[in-house]
Parts: sequence; structure tokens; C-alpha cells
Amino acid sequence: MNDTQRLQRGTTILTAGLLAWLTTAAIDALADEDLGRQLASKGNSTGAAACVGCHGSDGQGMAAGGFPRLAGLNADYLVSQLHAFRNGTRDNPIMTPIAAKLADGEIEAVAGYYALLPAATSGSSTPASHLEGDLLKRAELLATWGDWPQRRLPGCNQCHAPLGQGVGANFPGIAGQHASYLKAQLKAWQSGARRNDLLGMMRHVATSLSDEEIDLLAAYYASMPTGKAITAGNLAQVSVTKPAAGEASAPAAHQQAAFTPPSREQLPGGPFGDMVRLGEAIFTETNTHPISAPHVGNDQACTHCHLDAGRLADSSPLWAAWVSYPAYRKKNHKVNTYIERLQGCFTYSMNAQASKAGKPPAADSDTIVALTAYSYWLASGAPTGDNNMPGRGYPEVAATEKGFDVRRGAKVFADNCALCHGEDGLGVRDADGTTVFPPLWGERAYNWGAGMHRINTAAAFIKHNMPLGVGGLSDQDAWDVAAFMNSHERPQDPRYNGDFEDTIEQHHDSEYDYYGVDVEQSGRRLGQP
Amino acid sequence: MNDTQRLQRGTTILTAGLLAWLTTAAIDALADEDLGRQLASKGNSTGAAACVGCHGSDGQGMAAGGFPRLAGLNADYLVSQLHAFRNGTRDNPIMTPIAAKLADGEIEAVAGYYALLPAATSGSSTPASHLEGDLLKRAELLATWGDWPQRRLPGCNQCHAPLGQGVGANFPGIAGQHASYLKAQLKAWQSGARRNDLLGMMRHVATSLSDEEIDLLAAYYASMPTGKAITAGNLAQVSVTKPAAGEASAPAAHQQAAFTPPSREQLPGGPFGDMVRLGEAIFTETNTHPISAPHVGNDQACTHCHLDAGRLADSSPLWAAWVSYPAYRKKNHKVNTYIERLQGCFTYSMNAQASKAGKPPAADSDTIVALTAYSYWLASGAPTGDNNMPGRGYPEVAATEKGFDVRRGAKVFADNCALCHGEDGLGVRDADGTTVFPPLWGERAYNWGAGMHRINTAAAFIKHNMPLGVGGLSDQDAWDVAAFMNSHERPQDPRYNGDFEDTIEQHHDSEYDYYGVDVEQSGRRLGQP
Repeated sequence: MNDTQRLQRGTTILTAGLLAWLTTAAIDALADEDLGRQLASKGNSTGAAACVGCHGSDGQGMAAGGFPRLAGLNADYLVSQLHAFRNGTRDNPIMTPIAAKLADGEIEAVAGYYALLPAATSGSSTPASHLEGDLLKRAELLATWGDWPQRRLPGCNQCHAPLGQGVGANFPGIAGQHASYLKAQLKAWQSGARRNDLLGMMRHVATSLSDEEIDLLAAYYASMPTGKAITAGNLAQVSVTKPAAGEASAPAAHQQAAFTPPSREQLPGGPFGDMVRLGEAIFTETNTHPISAPHVGNDQACTHCHLDAGRLADSSPLWAAWVSYPAYRKKNHKVNTYIERLQGCFTYSMNAQASKAGKPPAADSDTIVALTAYSYWLASGAPTGDNNMPGRGYPEVAATEKGFDVRRGAKVFADNCALCHGEDGLGVRDADGTTVFPPLWGERAYNWGAGMHRINTAAAFIKHNMPLGVGGLSDQDAWDVAAFMNSHERPQDPRYNGDFEDTIEQHHDSEYDYYGVDVEQSGRRLGQP
Repeated sequence: MNDTQRLQRGTTILTAGLLAWLTTAAIDALADEDLGRQLASKGNSTGAAACVGCHGSDGQGMAAGGFPRLAGLNADYLVSQLHAFRNGTRDNPIMTPIAAKLADGEIEAVAGYYALLPAATSGSSTPASHLEGDLLKRAELLATWGDWPQRRLPGCNQCHAPLGQGVGANFPGIAGQHASYLKAQLKAWQSGARRNDLLGMMRHVATSLSDEEIDLLAAYYASMPTGKAITAGNLAQVSVTKPAAGEASAPAAHQQAAFTPPSREQLPGGPFGDMVRLGEAIFTETNTHPISAPHVGNDQACTHCHLDAGRLADSSPLWAAWVSYPAYRKKNHKVNTYIERLQGCFTYSMNAQASKAGKPPAADSDTIVALTAYSYWLASGAPTGDNNMPGRGYPEVAATEKGFDVRRGAKVFADNCALCHGEDGLGVRDADGTTVFPPLWGERAYNWGAGMHRINTAAAFIKHNMPLGVGGLSDQDAWDVAAFMNSHERPQDPRYNGDFEDTIEQHHDSEYDYYGVDVEQSGRRLGQP
């Protein structure tokens, strides 16, 4: 929890009369609030203009002028943007001269002030924001799912959190923001006029969108209510040092030739369609969906390892998995049906042992039937038994001359991954427990039996799927960061048989596996009970 | 049990010294045996030649002359053939004049005599009978499986019982018979020189075989040991009154366009291949295979409703079923996975409730995994989700003007079905419990919840699949005999909820369903608990 959030919580607590909980930090912040209010309403003595002139006395901005709402935005985000105006990485004829006249402390104070102002709760009411029917549906689809197969375009909500409520300093809330402002910014990312995005993510997104889609998304988020706070996660403040990528990376070759699953619009009606829909919902919200959550012992959902809800080529898509089961698996030395394979995901990647139910869902449970129906439907038209479909699994990354290295990986992680997953790697959940960015290690991550714990598997996943949408990591970086990720502790392998050495020999005898290894030379081996 | 069998058993019992069990019938039969021996060795006073001249003193026949072994053949079969020689429906320059000089009693005596002579137990030893390698494999495949997709050719063993040991009066043992004789007979069926087959079955078979295949099969069965008696079944003596069909009926249109599953020769190696093989074995021997038998409460195996081990188009082939699950089913008002669908076959068609385990196999049991792997493999290349593959299910039979009628059906049954299934409809099992011809009703047949109990489903199955290989029933006959079959009592519907009327309303409210109906107007309704 950062200061701003602490402050937000402090305010709530004050309202409730629980003064005893007020911390010194919150008291300092409240003192800053006075300075912030003053700067907002009057500017400062060195010539910085008052904010209220454009952003309004309540901080709600002005749609007509394209001036954004500031009220309720994340303080750290506002700080980072004022710094960007000041240092020129965000260029704006009005804001640049104002920011240039603000001292560091003033920036923090005014940002803190606006963060505490209540955002309009019912969204902007500009006429353009009233979407209906097909337009609304298109906007929803784009905001939720993006367009992975064609453009590797993430849904806005994948980073800006469900319903565009925002996540910490890096992903501002866009719900209830003025459409005119949202549109102008997307255009600015697109043209390169704005370029202070991290990892080039917004440039990639904006250049992927058509003008019509920009209008649609701007209107959609403008009408979206605010107020679903992202407060329960581990919002480590991160500074990503890597500059934005020059060009969005081209999709991998596989993408081009890959199978096309039916579109979401083609979802059938009737009870079968309902089951497919349930499967999609469970797939994306596995750890919070009421039906599947009792079998999930961590913060993982299926979609974390299978992007675009299991549709994306090179991201272990479900359509390719469906047609290649039943199959023999070395993992458990037997032929597994697809259902048993799904149950394995719960056992390992979702650590079902630590769940309420303590075990994966039964073969005839709604969860398994729904995930099975969903997978089957995604595979519509795919040839049964074809276990070499282009885009299947995570394509292997060739070994590099330098091998893989945890220390090099730490740097790659800080530059590319911490932005979303946090410097502590523990990911972000919203107030409802929905995982916005999954944890990569620790007790809430996949366990030592999950395929992803293998460095080669993780390198393959990362190379083809990370950072979200933009990609572009070198093979070497993918190997190194995979090693770094998997050099952390995580829940025990459910196959642990009481004998550490024997478990290693049975299941972890691989050069790509840190289970049983003392990577840090700390005297303690990873996975040691 | 007929007289001959009773006699066979009597002899065994005598050997064991258990004279107390000897029946009057057996004593009569033993008296006949003296007459039989005399006829065999000396002929009779009206000019019938002695049998031993051609068939040898021990009844083993003579390969060089093409004279068949008679020793150990079924007495009723021998009787029927002697009658055929005598009345000209089987034409033979040597046998016809001899049979013409035998009285009815003499025919029975000499047949009984030969039936009791021990057959050679290790098969004929003519040079041609030593098949090896690929030839042996081809012969085995043809004998076991026939060639359904191309020729609707049943495997010889499907009627002549596993390993060609023979079934009752209608299907003589062919194991250990001389290759020269077997070949000559197949040629005779083919040319029409021999035409006393029932329903034209042998004509259909023989005309479907190439000369090379005839040589192969003759050699194969000649080398097959005899001695696996078919003694445990319900070998009702039947007289089929319908003449042989003129021409083998053409395969249905669907057959031509249907999907081709991989051939048995393409079975993969390794643990997956082993599982597919296990699936095929379970599919064909469900009620006797040690893995699946504990879950089968009757004499049914999967292959009884899905001919050619689930491969045949228009016979609910597995390849079409595989690609159309998961699916919503009205039967249980929910979306069923393929596994649940398989379990349903155990619950209904194989009446698992009456089995040792008392319930279907678990989703992760070897039985279900094997059947799943087998189905999946058969569907290799089939498009996922295509629930309209040509050859899927049993194609509907159009309703006829006359509707369906149990009494007309009884006649159709006697003419076409009793030959294999017995006049009592209870089918035939061999000494090991292997079902040679499945029961159609009674406690050992599918229950009142199985799809086959619906008259329209049964009509569709029968129209496209019965009589085995030859087909040719009219739509009207198919409807009528389906009604007749399903007008008999069978095990209770597992969905019976304690309230007969409510169970009828919930599950049997159909014009094609006799559950709850007093068809015979006997005062007792079918399915009534």
C-alpha cells in the first residue's frame, strides 16, 4: 500500500470516527492536502497557473476543452505525469510550462489533493458516451478482450483493471474520463506526440486501433461509472527503466498460419451455449468465480497462462489442446483424458490442495463440464488428433550460448515485468479479489509441480507472450527472466512424497528445474519442506 | 439345450462316473449312437453308402478329396445338411444320392454319431494352413473384423463364434475343418452352386471375398484348434422360413460418403496405442473383459449397438460421436461430456446397476480412459464440433402408412432375427460368457432407459444394420420388428423414481415407447415395478 492509498483509507476511517487508526503518514498527507488545495485553486508564487481554470473547481475537468478529470485519479499516476510534463517526456503546450514551475513537493501535494477528490460516480454524461446495441457490444468486446489473434491487442481492462478502474501509478483509471480527452490521448499515442508510455504499450495499442474504434472506446469508458477501487493488491511502486519500444513487434510467424477459433459473437444459444459461456467465465475468473473458486488455492486463473481466454496461438491455446487429448503424459506416466488434464491445471497451476475444497473439481462438476465445453467449442472445425497444429503450446526457445542466469534475469524483470507484476512479483488483485496481474511466485502463485516452474517452459511462454501485447524480448532475456522468476519459492509440489531427494529424482531431474537447488547459495534449497 | 447337447453333456458325465444324472433322453440317444455308428461304417440296406469311405473311420474327412471333417460338428447342423442334400437345396453329386436313401431317423442317428466323435484338437495340418507373418495377420483381421466399411462384410467369427468354433445348428464350426473343403464351399456359395444359406448370408459373404482371401481364410481356419465349445448360451433351435435374398443389398448412401477412421494396422505404438487397443478390446468384450465386466449388469457389449467395433457408418460410429460432445442431452437435461455419455451407456445399455460394481466406471478409470482414447483415435482427422457427419447415429426411418405392429413384427423376427438371437430373443453366449449374439430382451438385455428401447431408434438401427451384413429389411419390417422387440420386458429404467406414472411422464411420454403400456393386454404394463 502506498501513501495515497493509505491516505484514502485514512479518510474513510476518519469518516467512521476511528481516529485511533490515523497514522503519522496520514497526518502529514492531510497537511499536504491544504497545500494541494491551495495550488489547485490559486497556483503558486512562481507563476504556475491554478488548476481549477481548466480542470474545474471539483476537479472534474471539462469535456468541451478536452481537459481531463483529475478527481479520484491515483496520486502516483498524477505525480508521474506532472514529472513527465516537467521533464518533457510528455509534451503539452499548456501543462509543460505549468509543471515547469512546480517543485517536487508541490507536485506531490497537488496530486494528493486531486486523488482525494471524489470522482463522478456515474461516468461522464457527454452525448457521445451513450452507446447502445451493436456499438455497445463492440466496445465491450474490444475493452474486455481486445483483438489478440489479428493485432495482439490486449483488452483495455487487462491493464486498466476490470471496467477501466485503473491500477496504481502505471495504469490510470479511464472509467468516467471525458471521451474528448481519452480520444485525444489515444491519437497522441498513435502519432507519437505522446510517448511517455512504459514498454511502448500504449503506442502499440493506439497504433493498432482504427479511428472508429478510438471513438468507440472513448465513448465507452466515458460512460463507465468509477468507484470500484483497486485496493487489495500488492501495488508495489515500480520504476521501469526501459524506454518504449520503437515499433510494435510483429506477431510471430505461427500467428499468421494459426487456426481461427469461432468468434465470441458466434457463441451458440441454448443450454450448450450457456455452458460454453460459463466455461469462458470460469477460464478468465477461475480464482473468483463462485463455481470454480473453491478449487483454487492461489491467485491464478486459467487465462494467465493461456492468453486471450485460451484463444491465442503460441499461448497454449485450448483449441490445440482439445484435439490432442487423450494423450500419454510423462508427468504422471499414463494416458490422460482432457478432463484429467484440466484437473491437473487445478492441482498444479492453481494449487488446489490449498483451496477450500482441497482438491480439483470432479470430472462431472459444472466447472469441468463448462471448461470442457468451452475448449471443445473453441476447437470447432479443428482436426481431431492433430497434435501439431501451428500455434500449439508455447513454441520452444532455442538455448542460447550464454545459458540462463538469475542475476541477468533480475534486471530483465525490473525493466519489463515489475510494471504489472510488481517488484515483489506478487501481482495485483482488486478489492473483489479478482487478479488483475497474476503473482509469479510466493504462496499465491503456481506450485512446484506446474509446468510453468520449468525454466524452458517459462522462457517459451515469456518469449511469445510477454510483455502483454508488445512482446519483443530477446531469447536471452526470456531465458534469463524465466530463470529469475523460477528461482523464487512457491507452494510445494503436490507430488512431494515425503522424501525430498526422491521427489527431486522422480519429478525434477532436469537442467531446467530449480526445485531442490540452492540458487541463492543461502543454505536453503528451493522447494525444501 | 437340445438333445445333442444333452447327449454331449451326458457323455461327459458318464466319463465322470455320475450315472445317476443320466436322463432317459440320453439313453435313447445312446441307442441311436449304435445305429449311427453302423450307418457310418456300413451304410444301410436301401443302398446308402458308408460314410467312412470318404470321411474316414474317425470322421476326420480327407483333405485331398475335399471331404469335410464331420467329427465333433453340431448334430443339428449335420441333420439340416443331410436334409438339404436329400431335398435338393444343397446339391452335391456324391451326397445327394446317399442322403436320398436315408430315412429321417437314420439322418438323426448318423448325425448324432458324428457329433460325438472327437474333433482333432489341434486343427488340420495341411501345408496350406501354416500362415505366418503378414498373411496370418491379414487372415486374423478378416476373420475377426471382416470389412464393414467397404463391403459390409462381417468377420467370420461374428456368426461362427470366436475362433470359428461354431454356434448351434445354424453356424457350423469351421475351426480345424479342411482348407480344401472350406475353399470349395466358399466358391460354391459364391457361384450359387450352394444356396441353402439362411438370409443369403453366406452368399453375401462369399461374393464379397476375393479368391486370395478365400484361400487365406480357408488356410486360417483349417489350422485353428477346435474344442472351445459353445455351451452356455440359449441355443434355441430355429427355423428361418425366409428364403435367401437374391442379391446382397447395396450399402446405404451414407456409407459411400462417410468418414474413414484409421485402419487397425495404423494403431500407434507406445502407451497411447496400448490404451487405444485396450479401448477396442473393452468395446467388443465389454461384459467379459476383466477391466470393464464388473460394471456390466447384462450380456451386452458396446459393439452390439455400434457395429464393427464402433467404426461403421449408420451404426452410431464413435468417430461421429466423439466430435459432437460435449453436448446438451434432453435425456438428463444437461450438457454431457463424452465421458458422461459413455457412462450413460453403462447405466442404460449395459444396466450397470445390476453389475458387480453396481455403477458405471469412474471418469478416470481405465475403462473410461481406454474407451475415450479409442473413440478419439477413431475420429483422427474428423472436424471437431461437426455434429452432422454423414453416417452419424442411426439415420431415421420414415414413418410408414401402416405404422408399426407387434404381431407383424413377430413374423419379421422369426424370419430374420431368430436365426442368431434365438426364438426366445435371449441371444447366445459361449462357455466363457462371451456374447456371440446379444439378447434383445429379458434380464440380460439393455434396460428401459437405453436409447434402443425406443421403437424409432430401434427401427433406425435395424433398418441400417440388420440382419448382420446382408440387410435388406423394408422400412415397414424394420418398424414392425422394432416394435416387437421392444414389446418385451427388460430391466427397469434406472431413472425410475418410485412413481410409475411420474416416471412415464418424465421419461417415456412418446408414441415410440412401450414403457408403461400393456401391449399384450395381459393386465400387466411393461416396466411396471
